[in-house]
Amino acid sequence: MFSRPDGRRADQLRTIAFQRGFTRYAEGSVLVSFGETRVLCNATVEESVPSFLRGEGRGWVTAEYSMLPRATQARSPREASRGKVGGRTHEIQRLIGRSLRAVVDLAALGERTIQIDCDVLQADGGTRTASITGAYVALVDAVAGLLDRGLIAASPVREPVAAVSAGLVEGVPLLDLNYEEDFRAAVDMNFVITGSGRFVEVQGTAEDHPFTLAELDALRDLALGGCRDLVRLQQQALRG
Amino acid sequence: MFSRPDGRRADQLRTIAFQRGFTRYAEGSVLVSFGETRVLCNATVEESVPSFLRGEGRGWVTAEYSMLPRATQARSPREASRGKVGGRTHEIQRLIGRSLRAVVDLAALGERTIQIDCDVLQADGGTRTASITGAYVALVDAVAGLLDRGLIAASPVREPVAAVSAGLVEGVPLLDLNYEEDFRAAVDMNFVITGSGRFVEVQGTAEDHPFTLAELDALRDLALGGCRDLVRLQQQALRG
Amino acid sequence: MFSRPDGRRADQLRTIAFQRGFTRYAEGSVLVSFGETRVLCNATVEESVPSFLRGEGRGWVTAEYSMLPRATQARSPREASRGKVGGRTHEIQRLIGRSLRAVVDLAALGERTIQIDCDVLQADGGTRTASITGAYVALVDAVAGLLDRGLIAASPVREPVAAVSAGLVEGVPLLDLNYEEDFRAAVDMNFVITGSGRFVEVQGTAEDHPFTLAELDALRDLALGGCRDLVRLQQQALRG
Amino acid sequence: MFSRPDGRRADQLRTIAFQRGFTRYAEGSVLVSFGETRVLCNATVEESVPSFLRGEGRGWVTAEYSMLPRATQARSPREASRGKVGGRTHEIQRLIGRSLRAVVDLAALGERTIQIDCDVLQADGGTRTASITGAYVALVDAVAGLLDRGLIAASPVREPVAAVSAGLVEGVPLLDLNYEEDFRAAVDMNFVITGSGRFVEVQGTAEDHPFTLAELDALRDLALGGCRDLVRLQQQALRG
Amino acid sequence: MFSRPDGRRADQLRTIAFQRGFTRYAEGSVLVSFGETRVLCNATVEESVPSFLRGEGRGWVTAEYSMLPRATQARSPREASRGKVGGRTHEIQRLIGRSLRAVVDLAALGERTIQIDCDVLQADGGTRTASITGAYVALVDAVAGLLDRGLIAASPVREPVAAVSAGLVEGVPLLDLNYEEDFRAAVDMNFVITGSGRFVEVQGTAEDHPFTLAELDALRDLALGGCRDLVRLQQQALRG
Amino acid sequence: MFSRPDGRRADQLRTIAFQRGFTRYAEGSVLVSFGETRVLCNATVEESVPSFLRGEGRGWVTAEYSMLPRATQARSPREASRGKVGGRTHEIQRLIGRSLRAVVDLAALGERTIQIDCDVLQADGGTRTASITGAYVALVDAVAGLLDRGLIAASPVREPVAAVSAGLVEGVPLLDLNYEEDFRAAVDMNFVITGSGRFVEVQGTAEDHPFTLAELDALRDLALGGCRDLVRLQQQALRG
Repeated sequence: MFSRPDGRRADQLRTIAFQRGFTRYAEGSVLVSFGETRVLCNATVEESVPSFLRGEGRGWVTAEYSMLPRATQARSPREASRGKVGGRTHEIQRLIGRSLRAVVDLAALGERTIQIDCDVLQADGGTRTASITGAYVALVDAVAGLLDRGLIAASPVREPVAAVSAGLVEGVPLLDLNYEEDFRAAVDMNFVITGSGRFVEVQGTAEDHPFTLAELDALRDLALGGCRDLVRLQQQALRG
Repeated sequence: MFSRPDGRRADQLRTIAFQRGFTRYAEGSVLVSFGETRVLCNATVEESVPSFLRGEGRGWVTAEYSMLPRATQARSPREASRGKVGGRTHEIQRLIGRSLRAVVDLAALGERTIQIDCDVLQADGGTRTASITGAYVALVDAVAGLLDRGLIAASPVREPVAAVSAGLVEGVPLLDLNYEEDFRAAVDMNFVITGSGRFVEVQGTAEDHPFTLAELDALRDLALGGCRDLVRLQQQALRG
Repeated sequence: MFSRPDGRRADQLRTIAFQRGFTRYAEGSVLVSFGETRVLCNATVEESVPSFLRGEGRGWVTAEYSMLPRATQARSPREASRGKVGGRTHEIQRLIGRSLRAVVDLAALGERTIQIDCDVLQADGGTRTASITGAYVALVDAVAGLLDRGLIAASPVREPVAAVSAGLVEGVPLLDLNYEEDFRAAVDMNFVITGSGRFVEVQGTAEDHPFTLAELDALRDLALGGCRDLVRLQQQALRG
Repeated sequence: MFSRPDGRRADQLRTIAFQRGFTRYAEGSVLVSFGETRVLCNATVEESVPSFLRGEGRGWVTAEYSMLPRATQARSPREASRGKVGGRTHEIQRLIGRSLRAVVDLAALGERTIQIDCDVLQADGGTRTASITGAYVALVDAVAGLLDRGLIAASPVREPVAAVSAGLVEGVPLLDLNYEEDFRAAVDMNFVITGSGRFVEVQGTAEDHPFTLAELDALRDLALGGCRDLVRLQQQALRG
Repeated sequence: MFSRPDGRRADQLRTIAFQRGFTRYAEGSVLVSFGETRVLCNATVEESVPSFLRGEGRGWVTAEYSMLPRATQARSPREASRGKVGGRTHEIQRLIGRSLRAVVDLAALGERTIQIDCDVLQADGGTRTASITGAYVALVDAVAGLLDRGLIAASPVREPVAAVSAGLVEGVPLLDLNYEEDFRAAVDMNFVITGSGRFVEVQGTAEDHPFTLAELDALRDLALGGCRDLVRLQQQALRG
Repeated sequence: MFSRPDGRRADQLRTIAFQRGFTRYAEGSVLVSFGETRVLCNATVEESVPSFLRGEGRGWVTAEYSMLPRATQARSPREASRGKVGGRTHEIQRLIGRSLRAVVDLAALGERTIQIDCDVLQADGGTRTASITGAYVALVDAVAGLLDRGLIAASPVREPVAAVSAGLVEGVPLLDLNYEEDFRAAVDMNFVITGSGRFVEVQGTAEDHPFTLAELDALRDLALGGCRDLVRLQQQALRG
């Protein structure tokens, strides 16, 4: 039976770390690590909203995602050089934005935007789940700045949100796959789950090996446990 | 309690129709209707594969998706005029390609590509699920042509595949949402399920109202029933 | 001597059909057939004009043209995927717009735009002439909607307009070429002619075989007759 | 009745001039003037052909056309800055290429390309007709170089080709319109005609005032005379 | 020791010429020649400023630069056809704009833009230095028009500006390199210097052979002399 | 007189640090700090060369440069989102590539490319000089890997190279400007200087205040001293 390269249990997260204040200009700046995956999540507060929201008294949270060319084992060309943002990038940045908006009361945020930038410095699987999980911490830091400056009276963040992957490798359901595991996985699912255990996103893909109902249940249970752990670690980091 | 605008039961599909041979040049050409949603699914056989597969003796199935500008109630600008393909389009065409590849034995297809084009003539919700469901029929027609011409000895299609949406409208789980229902849905999930009841894709998004485990189960059960019905209708159409 | 593949006389149109109301959202929606060539012509009414006309109290009529990838015998790549609209497409959509504006009193239309979308579902020669001829019918339907809603008091359409091709195949002047004939033609001309027999556009190209004055006269006479027939069929369809 | 701003007769060309050898690197380099319209026509010989012709033993003639930003009374933005070539430019460069190919025996040219660049230094109407007329002279100079170097034994140029406009201004048919006349013209036609008096292209547009058969005849006769004069001037320049 | 192909002394400019009024529409239009290098410099006055300056009561001077495809010995593709402006072009047009702004009092210019277009008709080395030197003359002509029309009371041009190259060829410092010399140069520097002998720009590149302090001094001295001569020739041309 | 915000002497560098091995996949990976400016310099070895060098037996060194959106005090849009790489970015990445090639024997490198990626994580002035100085260290690490694996027998790096800025602030020549100083500088020069004290690049710009010969000398002397210090720190880091 498959044994994990780093010796983890099936339901165990990689080593998770949040380094707050990683850069000095962003209102929230967190370097998140899921094992060897490292993503810099910067939150910027802008006192304006996209045109489709102007004058409605509500705020907005949106995200952009990018990988440094040498975040990966082989260098990948920059999207700026190719002159366009690829499909995978679009998918991920829309996902990050939706996930954060799910836990923010946009009316309470006021007519301003929190722009999240997730830049992957090093990629070892799970960059989108690390991005969401780290971006939440950066978002809370940016919101704290708004509270400190008296721009809002109460936090518009309703509850924490975290994300994690789960997949089937040689028939075994595993939590938080690294690149090698992901590469070998027949099924790869991503879950975005709130602190209260509700689902924001469920995404599962099984191009080569469609999966059964029983397998779906097993992966979902791993993810519920993993997100519970991640939310606890987020709270610790925010207290730290 | 919410009653459906067209009087359907909660677990009932819209009127489904497949018009095969809709255009004359494509190897498979199906106009699929899910109620007022109408998508032209053309399958093209090309005797080559993308460069990353060249010389490996395997085939490929890929898809492109587009909406005519006036498929929608208000006209939307063409992506060609804007000079780029948007994020939503990328997401959908990657989904269609993956869904079909999940039921095709690419080695048995031989070193050729089946290119699917899904062009939405009229959009009333569920264009991506209609696209997958119709594209399967066009694919089978294109494969039949390969069999007839003796280019392959047996069909590389392992089993049928269909897709359907399910969502929560005013707390009620409903199958196969039309545009008005989709607009009012708190949760919108898309399922791609094979003839043998296995999952190829599970996608659920709940930007405003994260959903519970019980709700997830209810939607999943509706989708399992809906895809069972769709596969039956696909088989009827292919016999017709 | 050359005999036409479908047995037509030299001065005979292909089977012409107009299917009004083909889609449900566009203010005018016509599927026009010139034999096996089929073009969906949708007319959209927008209550604004391009910036160069703003505040002048006049309206505008413009067009976009596109082919579905598999409208043709071999699949052609989408212009959206290539990231730009090609030269031939630009030429045709400018031609369609000019042809319709020639019969519309833009001041009487009021400060609004009629946007025509011509999407070729199947191409067997003459897609631009079919587009203009079908777009006229969609335009009249859209104008009828404006009249019905009391937004304009009288129709701004001054007279009908239709278009047809004529060419020299093996020295014989022929009307309304299909793809096979067009492929073999030494000269290919397109004429846009109004109901009163006046010329809006005359376009003739003879890259390989420059043509004589006598040949020019013969093609022009065919086109005058062909457009007379097309205008009669447009009027029938609009009464139907 | 309308009298021409520069006192010309209705059937009179503007002052025409060809300055050969205007730049030193191009194989043919001609600055052509049609009155105040000045176009630099450079012909480049390349010892290769586009991929669709490779290995067929035939040559190719193609053209690009551009205006300097301040060729016009008000500055127009560069197409390079806007990142794409516009529809009008595409139309014109395709026209120039077709017109020249109509008088060149591509098989006799051998597997090489003559690339024509027409860059408008100053625009006062008729830039496309000046381009074609000047490009012919540059082409002959480039061909002379091939003959001198013994790369071809005989000239592949079958006969001269020239182009001129004719239009209706206040009901009067006029030859070779300048910008002011063109601006006031109800109809503007362009003709490309060979030395033997045969038509390569006929293009007429009458967006605002569709024209009658009698008017078409009058314009065509002006153009036949004008091209006869232009061909004579081309021959003089080539002897000079 | 290296002797210059055209017999010049080491500190001698090529034949310099300024042809004012080269085209008729631009407010300033100068064809500048540095030997065989010929650049058309057109200055356009626009009664607006870029958005970042709006309402500040100051003007702007900016430039665009381009080469005709056959300005060079081998044809280079147009940037418009490739759909983007290259890095070298960006660098040069930013340099031209900065150089001219250095001698213009933008507040005295008033809220308007002088747009410079430098189009290289023929390139034999030094196109950027010729562009700056010629653009200064075109700028002064455009400013003269503003003075004549009473739009400004006094010239905002503080002093002349010119540019020249200097380089090391086989160890010898030479002024104003032509293409052949530039190709053989180990070091190539460009200097932009005002009439009062102050430096606006100093740019030196020595990819293959880093240079010593003594060599830097020698090149700088050549440039100081060369720009003194160029400013004298500019003044002559403006009086002429 | 101006006193530096961080209390440095006029000829003093900021705190310089090199963190080698910052990411794990790149052959050389250095996080360089010039005070608060932090740039991640990754060197990738690719066993191929650009097409213009293929088959010549020589290698290539090239660079790309980018800023994270929130490297700056206000967020800047991504170049990938705007669909093109701006002029400033082009200028900088060409400069980095040239600077490194100046100290590498490309023939001794063999037919392979060293691709440098400089990604600015935090920008406080001098990002291009930090990039060059850090990239040199990453390059040496990548070359060490080639030596270790026996792919080359001796290092192709001829000598160190470093870069630094110098500028005039309120008339005072200062070394290594931070953002605040740079913002107030009348003149800003960048120097790239080798370990042996020779110049690879000299770039000075004085849009608003052209500078005198004496000022040029003072800036150059500061830079010579600064690069001497930087080379010493690079050597320390590489030994560390």
